Amino acid sequence: MKARRKASKPWGGRFTRATDRLVERYTASIDFDRRLYKYDIQGSVAHAGMLAKCGLLTRAEADKIVAGLREIEGEIEREEFDFDPSSEDIHMAIERRLIEKVGEAGEKLHTGRSRNDQVALDLRLYLRDEIGQVRRLAADLERALIVQADAHLDLIMPGYTHLQRAQPVLLAHHLMAYVEMLERDRARLHDALRRIDVLPLGSGALAGVGLPIDRWFVAKALRFPALSANSLDAVSDRDFVIEPLAAFSVLMMHLSRLAEEIVLWASAEFGFIELPDAFATGSSMMPQKKNPDVAELTRAKSGRVVGALVALLTAMKGLPLSYNRDLQEDKEPLFDSVETVKAALSAMAALVARLRFRRDRMRQASREGFLNATDMADYLVLKGMPFREAHGVVGRIVKRCLAKRCRIEDLSLRELREASPHFEKDVFDYIDLEACVQRRRAVGGTAKATVKKAIEAARTRLRSK
Amino acid sequence: MKARRKASKPWGGRFTRATDRLVERYTASIDFDRRLYKYDIQGSVAHAGMLAKCGLLTRAEADKIVAGLREIEGEIEREEFDFDPSSEDIHMAIERRLIEKVGEAGEKLHTGRSRNDQVALDLRLYLRDEIGQVRRLAADLERALIVQADAHLDLIMPGYTHLQRAQPVLLAHHLMAYVEMLERDRARLHDALRRIDVLPLGSGALAGVGLPIDRWFVAKALRFPALSANSLDAVSDRDFVIEPLAAFSVLMMHLSRLAEEIVLWASAEFGFIELPDAFATGSSMMPQKKNPDVAELTRAKSGRVVGALVALLTAMKGLPLSYNRDLQEDKEPLFDSVETVKAALSAMAALVARLRFRRDRMRQASREGFLNATDMADYLVLKGMPFREAHGVVGRIVKRCLAKRCRIEDLSLRELREASPHFEKDVFDYIDLEACVQRRRAVGGTAKATVKKAIEAARTRLRSK
Amino acid sequence: MKARRKASKPWGGRFTRATDRLVERYTASIDFDRRLYKYDIQGSVAHAGMLAKCGLLTRAEADKIVAGLREIEGEIEREEFDFDPSSEDIHMAIERRLIEKVGEAGEKLHTGRSRNDQVALDLRLYLRDEIGQVRRLAADLERALIVQADAHLDLIMPGYTHLQRAQPVLLAHHLMAYVEMLERDRARLHDALRRIDVLPLGSGALAGVGLPIDRWFVAKALRFPALSANSLDAVSDRDFVIEPLAAFSVLMMHLSRLAEEIVLWASAEFGFIELPDAFATGSSMMPQKKNPDVAELTRAKSGRVVGALVALLTAMKGLPLSYNRDLQEDKEPLFDSVETVKAALSAMAALVARLRFRRDRMRQASREGFLNATDMADYLVLKGMPFREAHGVVGRIVKRCLAKRCRIEDLSLRELREASPHFEKDVFDYIDLEACVQRRRAVGGTAKATVKKAIEAARTRLRSK
Amino acid sequence: MKARRKASKPWGGRFTRATDRLVERYTASIDFDRRLYKYDIQGSVAHAGMLAKCGLLTRAEADKIVAGLREIEGEIEREEFDFDPSSEDIHMAIERRLIEKVGEAGEKLHTGRSRNDQVALDLRLYLRDEIGQVRRLAADLERALIVQADAHLDLIMPGYTHLQRAQPVLLAHHLMAYVEMLERDRARLHDALRRIDVLPLGSGALAGVGLPIDRWFVAKALRFPALSANSLDAVSDRDFVIEPLAAFSVLMMHLSRLAEEIVLWASAEFGFIELPDAFATGSSMMPQKKNPDVAELTRAKSGRVVGALVALLTAMKGLPLSYNRDLQEDKEPLFDSVETVKAALSAMAALVARLRFRRDRMRQASREGFLNATDMADYLVLKGMPFREAHGVVGRIVKRCLAKRCRIEDLSLRELREASPHFEKDVFDYIDLEACVQRRRAVGGTAKATVKKAIEAARTRLRSK
Repeated sequence: MKARRKASKPWGGRFTRATDRLVERYTASIDFDRRLYKYDIQGSVAHAGMLAKCGLLTRAEADKIVAGLREIEGEIEREEFDFDPSSEDIHMAIERRLIEKVGEAGEKLHTGRSRNDQVALDLRLYLRDEIGQVRRLAADLERALIVQADAHLDLIMPGYTHLQRAQPVLLAHHLMAYVEMLERDRARLHDALRRIDVLPLGSGALAGVGLPIDRWFVAKALRFPALSANSLDAVSDRDFVIEPLAAFSVLMMHLSRLAEEIVLWASAEFGFIELPDAFATGSSMMPQKKNPDVAELTRAKSGRVVGALVALLTAMKGLPLSYNRDLQEDKEPLFDSVETVKAALSAMAALVARLRFRRDRMRQASREGFLNATDMADYLVLKGMPFREAHGVVGRIVKRCLAKRCRIEDLSLRELREASPHFEKDVFDYIDLEACVQRRRAVGGTAKATVKKAIEAARTRLRSK
Repeated sequence: MKARRKASKPWGGRFTRATDRLVERYTASIDFDRRLYKYDIQGSVAHAGMLAKCGLLTRAEADKIVAGLREIEGEIEREEFDFDPSSEDIHMAIERRLIEKVGEAGEKLHTGRSRNDQVALDLRLYLRDEIGQVRRLAADLERALIVQADAHLDLIMPGYTHLQRAQPVLLAHHLMAYVEMLERDRARLHDALRRIDVLPLGSGALAGVGLPIDRWFVAKALRFPALSANSLDAVSDRDFVIEPLAAFSVLMMHLSRLAEEIVLWASAEFGFIELPDAFATGSSMMPQKKNPDVAELTRAKSGRVVGALVALLTAMKGLPLSYNRDLQEDKEPLFDSVETVKAALSAMAALVARLRFRRDRMRQASREGFLNATDMADYLVLKGMPFREAHGVVGRIVKRCLAKRCRIEDLSLRELREASPHFEKDVFDYIDLEACVQRRRAVGGTAKATVKKAIEAARTRLRSK
Repeated sequence: MKARRKASKPWGGRFTRATDRLVERYTASIDFDRRLYKYDIQGSVAHAGMLAKCGLLTRAEADKIVAGLREIEGEIEREEFDFDPSSEDIHMAIERRLIEKVGEAGEKLHTGRSRNDQVALDLRLYLRDEIGQVRRLAADLERALIVQADAHLDLIMPGYTHLQRAQPVLLAHHLMAYVEMLERDRARLHDALRRIDVLPLGSGALAGVGLPIDRWFVAKALRFPALSANSLDAVSDRDFVIEPLAAFSVLMMHLSRLAEEIVLWASAEFGFIELPDAFATGSSMMPQKKNPDVAELTRAKSGRVVGALVALLTAMKGLPLSYNRDLQEDKEPLFDSVETVKAALSAMAALVARLRFRRDRMRQASREGFLNATDMADYLVLKGMPFREAHGVVGRIVKRCLAKRCRIEDLSLRELREASPHFEKDVFDYIDLEACVQRRRAVGGTAKATVKKAIEAARTRLRSK
Repeated sequence: MKARRKASKPWGGRFTRATDRLVERYTASIDFDRRLYKYDIQGSVAHAGMLAKCGLLTRAEADKIVAGLREIEGEIEREEFDFDPSSEDIHMAIERRLIEKVGEAGEKLHTGRSRNDQVALDLRLYLRDEIGQVRRLAADLERALIVQADAHLDLIMPGYTHLQRAQPVLLAHHLMAYVEMLERDRARLHDALRRIDVLPLGSGALAGVGLPIDRWFVAKALRFPALSANSLDAVSDRDFVIEPLAAFSVLMMHLSRLAEEIVLWASAEFGFIELPDAFATGSSMMPQKKNPDVAELTRAKSGRVVGALVALLTAMKGLPLSYNRDLQEDKEPLFDSVETVKAALSAMAALVARLRFRRDRMRQASREGFLNATDMADYLVLKGMPFREAHGVVGRIVKRCLAKRCRIEDLSLRELREASPHFEKDVFDYIDLEACVQRRRAVGGTAKATVKKAIEAARTRLRSK
């Protein structure tokens, strides 16, 4: 028991009084960094292997350590591990238990490393794993959107600017806009990985390690393609955490937009979708309500991730080199953001997959709102009228329709020719909604063939990664 | 069992399929809003009393409800309560249990209220309590600062601008600066209370309540001095949460500054303080280290609270009236911020109380750095020289000292008179550090008598609140 | 010329090389702090008066200074003032010009003060003025809302939760929700004023002033009810800037919600309002568009003000006492936020004043969506049914209506009695929309009489302030 | 004149009343987006070329347009251009002027494009340019750091953790830590470019373009390697602005840390550097001061860029597709951040280049603080003692030194052997500071040879990009 207490504060030699309980609670991180246990053990196994290879441990000592660490991993997974809060953090808790298990060999494990490079390592291993998962979940949401797009390649809806109906688009085209956003989000995370995937171990507390260690051995064991190039930097920067938090913030911003649209579309006024019962909740007072809670919560959670980003940027501001205890505050915002992003992606993928689009309402909405006005101006341009003039002509026609409470296509050719003699009979075919959509064939346009190609391209991308 | 399931989703009537598990987890708030249980019960007791008074419950029903709620409170406090995650939130969990306990009377409790006004009520009761605690803890930190100030009324240290030594000040004066900041923080929270201390119950889901209820009865039972004046506003705004989060952010910014100074002062370079052993931690690799972890963590945690503020401001941005599920995201940032602020105040108060100031180092530092240069310029001003000219004269004298590597007071009167004939023998008394300090007697200055008065004023303020 | 150069860098005595141009540009604030000129002069006039009263200036010198300052004020207002960037800041620029004008007396003006307390003073005077203006503009927006509310006391619209139609409310009630929010915003700013309205002058550079000055004289001249109580605090804190920025952020969040609703209501789908032509813009490509740009920009500008708040909170984090040059970064976020808030309030007030509400669309929308379902449940409660049971009964009735595609009131009494024998003929009167609205008479409810009282109360409040 | 007015509101056809002046001011962006003029003209020239190639303009029309645009570019550069605020934005202002100049051809320029894809194009061209400049300026700062590192390859200073002296490092190693950070910042911006460098033109207002255009022609003319793949996405997302803002925020966080260290090092307490006169400013009241203003302002400006990031993330949150006027609020935060980052990098590069390091003070500081304690523990490890035990032994030795007020190397071998019999005479060589530094040869360590290699590697990187 006494040994254990001693072991639990490995830096206690110099101190004359017991750490105040209040301080212990305030400074302990074990309540949240325990989720790093798997990575801590992974890193220690690699480190022990390297120490043996370099003659700083005997092979037998290394084997004992590795066996002990595996046992501890099992204990944690079976929830038999005693997370004593006096252990400060997960690294100490595991080391303490290891020493209990394997004795002196365990006391040698920390040779040639420091908690500073150890925690940086664990966090990088964690991020590598979790970013992989986030990228896979984002791909799942892309797939759900693609399936819906593919199933609605003929459904025309109003495209909006300023939330005003503007031009007809395919629902498929609209959904594919989010696929493009998510693909960039995935690319951003992929780029971040290159800066995360760097081995910090071997940086010591701050100045590098004075013993004859082999950093590349550890790097290979843990599949790191690069070593950190400056020990002070390696233990004291957290840009490798901030960068994914920023990428998550953008991703969540994108989800907040999709969520907003689902809330709008589920309203009685839009009525574009039917929410699956399983994805909506009711009201305690109004039995008729069917609320888009999943979308609403996702929309709100975007703020939470931005908050985490701000928290860490603020915490890092103005810190001198190298390691400062301030850095401990990187973990909770990161962990919470990872969980939030993963939950939001999963929930939105499931929701999107089960949305039922109300074709009648979308079609009806497309017929109102002069969605073909732009094409009528284009028609005049093709007849040789300067664009700005054509724009004015159509503006006056729309005004007339508003007064008459009719659609453009309800006007007679004669009425149109009063506005401009360039109009001929073919104008009515030209401004047919279907024609308006199919005409936008250039890359990025809403024509069915173009959207089909975009779907194919997206599927290919998803398969290749 | 069936009854329980039915009770647990009170809005289930309309739905044809069971809520998806994923959605259940995503939308449930019971993991964090359970800490509102006390306030939820408090509110329900008052509500039941009102319903009885208005004839919407019999007195017997109300009594059964109140007894049931008290039992539930006991179960929760004894950790015997089953927080079934399918209960969504603490409000449902308590109501469900109540119905199990008291049957039909329990089903009547929700008469004339909605979860929307209920949750707003619970949050206001929570905030009222917690802000009281935060204000008391801030007062404790003020007291710790005052005790140290009072004990060091004779200790001169360098006052800094731009982290350059500038003028001599009393350590007591320096510490009292933080007392002033904290006093404003407390005032801001006090002001926020006036907007928090408003009863929202009686707003219904959004439109008010159609039954003959008595809002003032509830207000009096819960000691609210005011009723919310608009039901839509009452259920849908969260400015009463954002305002304290902003006040907390400023408070934590203040603590981050105090923390920064403690970190600086504990450095070998400054050496102004000795950290209490119990409030510092060591290094796993460098046995000589004594790290100001408590101060560092406090400094970093300021970012965390700013992050919470941003999270909620972002979540609320652009939401249409009235209640949206987005509002559920108010709780975790709030709860986390309250815990953070309370822990930081407690830790800093304990730390400040035990700081040992190194008089020798502070005095030594005060003697270097030409801290009396300003007073030398003032001396010339009193002799009739325009301030800007005096400033230039002293600048040249300082330059000379730098070249000679001496202090101003080491120059002879002759040397001074070369710079300006206005200097006379009394200049040396005038620029004595002690004299420089004592001269600043006007309100807010660093003279001992003035600081003493400031300490007295602060003590009086703290007693009166 | 030489004199001028000398004057323009009043702290140049010690320096051996000219300030680098790059540094000059980087550190100069005159491009933005020039807008403080009025307050700087106001403060200097009071300061000069005090110096004369205390015998630190002759009356003649003070008179010359005041006359010079008034001339400079005129020059600036007539745009004849030379804002030489080498002057660093507005304080130096005015002082330099004053010395050009009145010679030696001008060189004496800076006696007993420092740029540190001077800039804190100017900023407080600025804030006092501008907060007054913001509060008046917020009151104007309240008035615009009240006028519209008063004009629509009979217009029923759907009240929403989760953007789902929930219960009928009066448009007037909905608009008055924003009046309540704005009133709290105004109260927050009023509270902030108490902490702003404190005289910092007399704090010197950091330690107080060593000359025999009279701070209360200055306070009275500038109408400050209080003196700063600690000089270090007075020159180094900026919580008096952060607090209004936080209040502005909440205010803009409120405006973003109103803006969002205007965008929604102006959509074809809602169609609740007609935008005034003068307050909408068109599209360069789609002549039929009428875009709610003013509302959209207001919604977006809420982010801008939150950004300013974060900028300053981050900048202040971890700064040691006392003044640091970092504080110069307080001005641009503040100035930009003040301009943004004032412009947004003005634009929204004008927009609200001219909104035309489409009664037909609002009424029609109210008739759909089972807005009276809650009242039907209340009806059953009054007949003695427990609320939770009543809720279930109405849920089943709504389900039936959905299947039959009809409204609740379209069902026959017989059909209703199949769901519950408690229904009687009077139920139809009870669930009439008008009755549902008028029933919510309790404080905060949507009944016409209650809303009328709320309007009266709001008008009284606005008159009294 | 009339023509001009008409031209200035090209969407005016439908409107019956003149745009309100207030609205004009509120919605106009020309005051800030005028800085896009160069990119707007560049884009229009490419667009005109494409229209001619596709037969939508005659070659003669295209030539007239291009000539007109070049003239306008000259007018703007010579400051002869009339930025009429009624022009709304730079795009309209240029088009209006073009029509004045070349008549009908000018009215045809907007054929096949919209302001929505045009503004996205201009912003991408701007970003491409400016990010190139920021990357070059960051490289300049790297070079300044490398020059200083190279010049101080023999200077040992204390390495810090928790601002406590920890282990000896080379100043060169310390400076190279920032080179690594900046290199990652440059890499992040490089990665962002891949998502910026995508042609949005051809997306029309939202749905793509219905005329037979050739997007690749424009892409090649403007050197874009890719086309946007979805028109709705291309006109409505701003992640390509947020991503560089996030990278800027991290970069500024890094600069804030360097700035903090310069402030610390320039303090009397550290005394590690002498600030160049040209890069410091003085005090208006304290002539002896030499303030690190450039570093302080840089530190503070990190908050400003974080604020801009938050502003845009908040503004984008929850916006439905596609273009909304909210997006106009992207420009000011971006422009301000670009200017801030460029100014900060320039100022810091110039400052770093001229820092004079005080070798005496750094060396002296290194000798105090038990910087060789870790190596003494390593010594024992190499003698076979488990690390944790060695750590304890050295802890006790340090305690003894503290009591005796001496350095470790001042103890006799006998005293050391009392602590552990493993100590032998060679320990004194082992713990010599120079030896401690040179021992850390592994990649990333502080040994001179290793740092030299790091410098070489950094120089190679900078040459190759």
